[in-house]
Amino acid sequence: MLSLCQRSIEPLLRAPVIGVLFSLLLILGAVVLSTHSPFAFFSIEGLVIVVGGVIAVAFMSFEAEDVRKALGVIAEMFRKPSAVPQDNLHHDMMEIIAWAYLVKEKGVRRLEASLAKRGIDDPFVKYGLNMVVSGYSVEEVRAMMETAADAGFERDSIPVDVLQTMTSHAPAFGMIGTLVGMVAMLCSLNDNVSNIGASLSVAFLSTLYGVVSARIVYMPAASKLRQTVAKRRFRNQLITEGMVMLVGDKSPMYIKDRLNSFLRPERHDYINTLKLDQRPTAAPLRLEVVRA
Amino acid sequence: MLSLCQRSIEPLLRAPVIGVLFSLLLILGAVVLSTHSPFAFFSIEGLVIVVGGVIAVAFMSFEAEDVRKALGVIAEMFRKPSAVPQDNLHHDMMEIIAWAYLVKEKGVRRLEASLAKRGIDDPFVKYGLNMVVSGYSVEEVRAMMETAADAGFERDSIPVDVLQTMTSHAPAFGMIGTLVGMVAMLCSLNDNVSNIGASLSVAFLSTLYGVVSARIVYMPAASKLRQTVAKRRFRNQLITEGMVMLVGDKSPMYIKDRLNSFLRPERHDYINTLKLDQRPTAAPLRLEVVRA
Amino acid sequence: MLSLCQRSIEPLLRAPVIGVLFSLLLILGAVVLSTHSPFAFFSIEGLVIVVGGVIAVAFMSFEAEDVRKALGVIAEMFRKPSAVPQDNLHHDMMEIIAWAYLVKEKGVRRLEASLAKRGIDDPFVKYGLNMVVSGYSVEEVRAMMETAADAGFERDSIPVDVLQTMTSHAPAFGMIGTLVGMVAMLCSLNDNVSNIGASLSVAFLSTLYGVVSARIVYMPAASKLRQTVAKRRFRNQLITEGMVMLVGDKSPMYIKDRLNSFLRPERHDYINTLKLDQRPTAAPLRLEVVRA
Amino acid sequence: MLSLCQRSIEPLLRAPVIGVLFSLLLILGAVVLSTHSPFAFFSIEGLVIVVGGVIAVAFMSFEAEDVRKALGVIAEMFRKPSAVPQDNLHHDMMEIIAWAYLVKEKGVRRLEASLAKRGIDDPFVKYGLNMVVSGYSVEEVRAMMETAADAGFERDSIPVDVLQTMTSHAPAFGMIGTLVGMVAMLCSLNDNVSNIGASLSVAFLSTLYGVVSARIVYMPAASKLRQTVAKRRFRNQLITEGMVMLVGDKSPMYIKDRLNSFLRPERHDYINTLKLDQRPTAAPLRLEVVRA
Amino acid sequence: MLSLCQRSIEPLLRAPVIGVLFSLLLILGAVVLSTHSPFAFFSIEGLVIVVGGVIAVAFMSFEAEDVRKALGVIAEMFRKPSAVPQDNLHHDMMEIIAWAYLVKEKGVRRLEASLAKRGIDDPFVKYGLNMVVSGYSVEEVRAMMETAADAGFERDSIPVDVLQTMTSHAPAFGMIGTLVGMVAMLCSLNDNVSNIGASLSVAFLSTLYGVVSARIVYMPAASKLRQTVAKRRFRNQLITEGMVMLVGDKSPMYIKDRLNSFLRPERHDYINTLKLDQRPTAAPLRLEVVRA
Repeated sequence: MLSLCQRSIEPLLRAPVIGVLFSLLLILGAVVLSTHSPFAFFSIEGLVIVVGGVIAVAFMSFEAEDVRKALGVIAEMFRKPSAVPQDNLHHDMMEIIAWAYLVKEKGVRRLEASLAKRGIDDPFVKYGLNMVVSGYSVEEVRAMMETAADAGFERDSIPVDVLQTMTSHAPAFGMIGTLVGMVAMLCSLNDNVSNIGASLSVAFLSTLYGVVSARIVYMPAASKLRQTVAKRRFRNQLITEGMVMLVGDKSPMYIKDRLNSFLRPERHDYINTLKLDQRPTAAPLRLEVVRA
Repeated sequence: MLSLCQRSIEPLLRAPVIGVLFSLLLILGAVVLSTHSPFAFFSIEGLVIVVGGVIAVAFMSFEAEDVRKALGVIAEMFRKPSAVPQDNLHHDMMEIIAWAYLVKEKGVRRLEASLAKRGIDDPFVKYGLNMVVSGYSVEEVRAMMETAADAGFERDSIPVDVLQTMTSHAPAFGMIGTLVGMVAMLCSLNDNVSNIGASLSVAFLSTLYGVVSARIVYMPAASKLRQTVAKRRFRNQLITEGMVMLVGDKSPMYIKDRLNSFLRPERHDYINTLKLDQRPTAAPLRLEVVRA
Repeated sequence: MLSLCQRSIEPLLRAPVIGVLFSLLLILGAVVLSTHSPFAFFSIEGLVIVVGGVIAVAFMSFEAEDVRKALGVIAEMFRKPSAVPQDNLHHDMMEIIAWAYLVKEKGVRRLEASLAKRGIDDPFVKYGLNMVVSGYSVEEVRAMMETAADAGFERDSIPVDVLQTMTSHAPAFGMIGTLVGMVAMLCSLNDNVSNIGASLSVAFLSTLYGVVSARIVYMPAASKLRQTVAKRRFRNQLITEGMVMLVGDKSPMYIKDRLNSFLRPERHDYINTLKLDQRPTAAPLRLEVVRA
Repeated sequence: MLSLCQRSIEPLLRAPVIGVLFSLLLILGAVVLSTHSPFAFFSIEGLVIVVGGVIAVAFMSFEAEDVRKALGVIAEMFRKPSAVPQDNLHHDMMEIIAWAYLVKEKGVRRLEASLAKRGIDDPFVKYGLNMVVSGYSVEEVRAMMETAADAGFERDSIPVDVLQTMTSHAPAFGMIGTLVGMVAMLCSLNDNVSNIGASLSVAFLSTLYGVVSARIVYMPAASKLRQTVAKRRFRNQLITEGMVMLVGDKSPMYIKDRLNSFLRPERHDYINTLKLDQRPTAAPLRLEVVRA
Repeated sequence: MLSLCQRSIEPLLRAPVIGVLFSLLLILGAVVLSTHSPFAFFSIEGLVIVVGGVIAVAFMSFEAEDVRKALGVIAEMFRKPSAVPQDNLHHDMMEIIAWAYLVKEKGVRRLEASLAKRGIDDPFVKYGLNMVVSGYSVEEVRAMMETAADAGFERDSIPVDVLQTMTSHAPAFGMIGTLVGMVAMLCSLNDNVSNIGASLSVAFLSTLYGVVSARIVYMPAASKLRQTVAKRRFRNQLITEGMVMLVGDKSPMYIKDRLNSFLRPERHDYINTLKLDQRPTAAPLRLEVVRA
């Protein structure tokens, strides 16, 4: 049953925004099933405390720039379906192999010229190629690029921390809202006992908002971002290894075998091996054309 | 008493699906003991919020492929008893020793031919043998295979993360369902006080579903998968060590002693030591036959 | 007051089983003090859900063999007082030093003969001595024994995981039992309001069982086993270091100084230093006699 | 909506003190919305237990100096907006490059004289330059400065621990206050049932204080301080690397490329490369003037 | 306000025992404020379950010796103000430098004689000096002392684990006591409804005891001990480094510069540099006299 269930809803969920809507629909459906007035589930105080409180504390705890990035991730989750380019790693590997051919045949100068013409967008690759072209040793290039990859990973991880902190704050602010509501209700208990149900229900709404926002907004955003950051680090390790091999003057075939170890086994490429003697010189050029 | 108890129920539990059924039976038995109408424990809203919410959020938080793998693990737990091949590591070791004999006697070329004939299913072993046959150095093969093992482990670990996230989401969605039910109940408290018991019992069902599904479905699945992944990593370390020694041209006897360190001590094999001078050349062939 | 208290109860608690009984007595005493009928604290449904559920889920989550080991640790805790051999590390050190004398005076062959006569029980020591006798290099022996120690530690740690998982499951199943009881009670609230107290008390019993079993059974067992496993790992590091020095042909005195670093400072042995020139050759033999 | 919201409130929140006030305003606003007497939310006992208890336990758990530092961080959060010098890392890098020019052209002695004239405030930089000037080897300087950076990081982290401990204590002391209030209320239940609401509301105030102070005071302070400490460690790594290169007599251009790896890619400086042959000798002097 | 508050209470809190009394006073004050009979806060059953249960389970979970050490730490917290010798690290450094002068001028033999006369209390320093005097190489001494420092740290950390376990057990046993009380109360609900308030208040006392003892006794003790253990490890790293440099025959000035890296920057000592040529030979002797 489970597997049937996932198959039927999965296409709907590929785009996160639909996932959010679907989840909210599930809960709203249950709400409508269990009560006659969905407006009973709306409380402006609860929203102010839970949403406002979480965002305010995030700005207090982190630098504004990091919080803005974290909120951007949430906003993106609602706006557009994430078009994940699955082929990234394989493409990066092929590009490095192409550069290795260039270096092998025409030397580092030619690589420099070729790069100047094309322009490189990715700052990490750009930094790496600059170091390769500058003529540093293998150890120097490795130290530089590993520092750059680690420093980038640490910087990228802060917005993940922001979202995780927000995940932990949301239910706490929900509890604060509920406590405020209960204290207010208990204070005036003797005056209007008849109203206790409505007051309690409003008080509980804050907790509900806190748990729902944590689980449906902050936690998925943190999870998505953590994976994105981890993937970038992994890819930067591949690039680092590739640049180091470019500097070390390794054969394109060795580079391919070495970088293969970063890919899924089913994406390894043994048959169509790039053998130095069999392969026409045009190959790397073809790759460049494909990319341009 | 405990040990008696475990002995009597343990055969029943070897197959996880029976374990699940047994656990559910325990709880259902207690349910039947404590109430007269088991249908009182069914709530469609609770099921929708808890099961649907957890799966929807999982699709929001992870890539569809990883969630599908995680759900596949759950489905498998219910379908077939897991036939764990206990002998894996010892078998892998014997195979590597057989290859070492081949290399020792007839060189790497012969190993290549032999492998081409037989075909290797496991992609990690296949990658490793390809590197051995390609004539790379010890350090190069070690770097490649360690990267491949680490990258594989990181990829395999994501579905474990999915299941752990689901374990943490299930009780939270149970709480969401209960809060929805309580708010609805409290809103209309004045209209029907007489119904408060039934409403509360329905509200609590969501929490019950959340805790039960987390503990009986998601957590055991996460635990099983985590162990499977850890075992694969450990085995890949053994394979890596073996491949490195094949490249390093170590004697089959040394390889055996080295790989023994990965096995349980009671599985070490001292008496029947594969001594180079005593052992007939046919030994590795016999191993291949056994496998075919 | 605290220190007085511990002194008076500590002899009673040295044997874990008495500790368990004492803890239960404390709680039962409090139970008897607070109620007139101790049978009010017995609920067959609660026991079935909490004890049965935890064991069933453990069998679902781990391999049967590991769960059986974990349950064995619990059973042992109740059966016999643990006779901890405090002197282990010092004894291991003395034995390695004796072997070093043998190697120094009569060569590795003699050590081999001596070992064959006596027989070694401990599989890790046996493996190590086999590697020493086989004539491998220092690096090879270190790599082998470190792998064996790490692999053994990982295997030994799984039952600790089982007990920790049971510790976390017990209160959750207690909560499940309580929720089942409360839902059943609330369902039939209108029929028998007078019985609400008794029903609630039975429902709460499951939570009580869950917390008590977690804190008095599973957690101490996990803690004990974790320490045992950590000690074995530490001792295996000492053995590894000793074997490596045997291979490296270090003097017995150096071996002693080096292995001293693993012991508590108050157990270091400076005065009675085993000086090569002063010490009669019979010393290692005396050690063997002491052991036989 | 989210991103609109953050844009509008973000300038207000850049100074933490305004953030605190804003958060408190949110909650007070909700309080005023839900009750007519804000004084109902004031309880002297609750404040004494929660604030006093947390600070007292902090002094019991840590050394007075560390607690004072932690409280200083909280006080600072309320007093002045944090003027974060964004340009730190880039500035440090430029300074090290300037020193490298000095060493290159006039030798270490000149650097010593120049430093004696200017005076260095930062103790870590001062220690590093002293070691550079003392003529130690690359390995020695690296070992010294890494130890100094690690030791400094460990010392700096203790106030973070203090604030994290306070974060965990605050809700616990809130619970203690609530339990005290509830026990007192339940004791005298029969005397004045009519007062139960007010008593409960006062009891709940402690929990409210505990959660609010943990989330709005201790946790943001801990978060801010943790980031400050992490940034200082990162910057000290950059300084260490720079000093090691000064000792290693690397060219200013290499130092720049190496230190670039610590900066954000968008702050890398390729075009305006400090080439040894193009750059006038006055450059480092200019830097000194800028700083003076 | 916060900083004013801390300044006024801080002298009182420097001795932990006063901290404990102050915290208890805060809570008792609140108790007295909120109720007229402080005896309502005393429950012999609660104390037996919470205090006895926690200690009994500690003896079940750990070895008696470690639990006794942990209880000793708690007892010490109540008995005497901790006179922390702030100057430890600097003093250790000066002593090592004095030894370096001795070795430099008169050789290792003289150091041995000098040590035999004075006697060394600290077992770690004693072990280290023995190894220095025994003529081992730099690598050997480093390996020995690092093992000794690590092993000592692991042994010292067990009582910290005991106290952390007690911190987690105390609220759980509080919950057990409360559950026992509530079950007993609910059982006899129909007989005496009028007594429900008093029974509940007694039941809640166990929870109160659990939380209070965890937060005011076990947690501060664990925190204090953890810091003590961490400081000892850090100091042993300094000693190790110093011993290694003694063996490596480094100049006293280098030793000073190297060990400076372990100290706070404000305790570095640049001006009064111990220069080999300027400093009279009597200096180390003076240090010894100061210490005797």
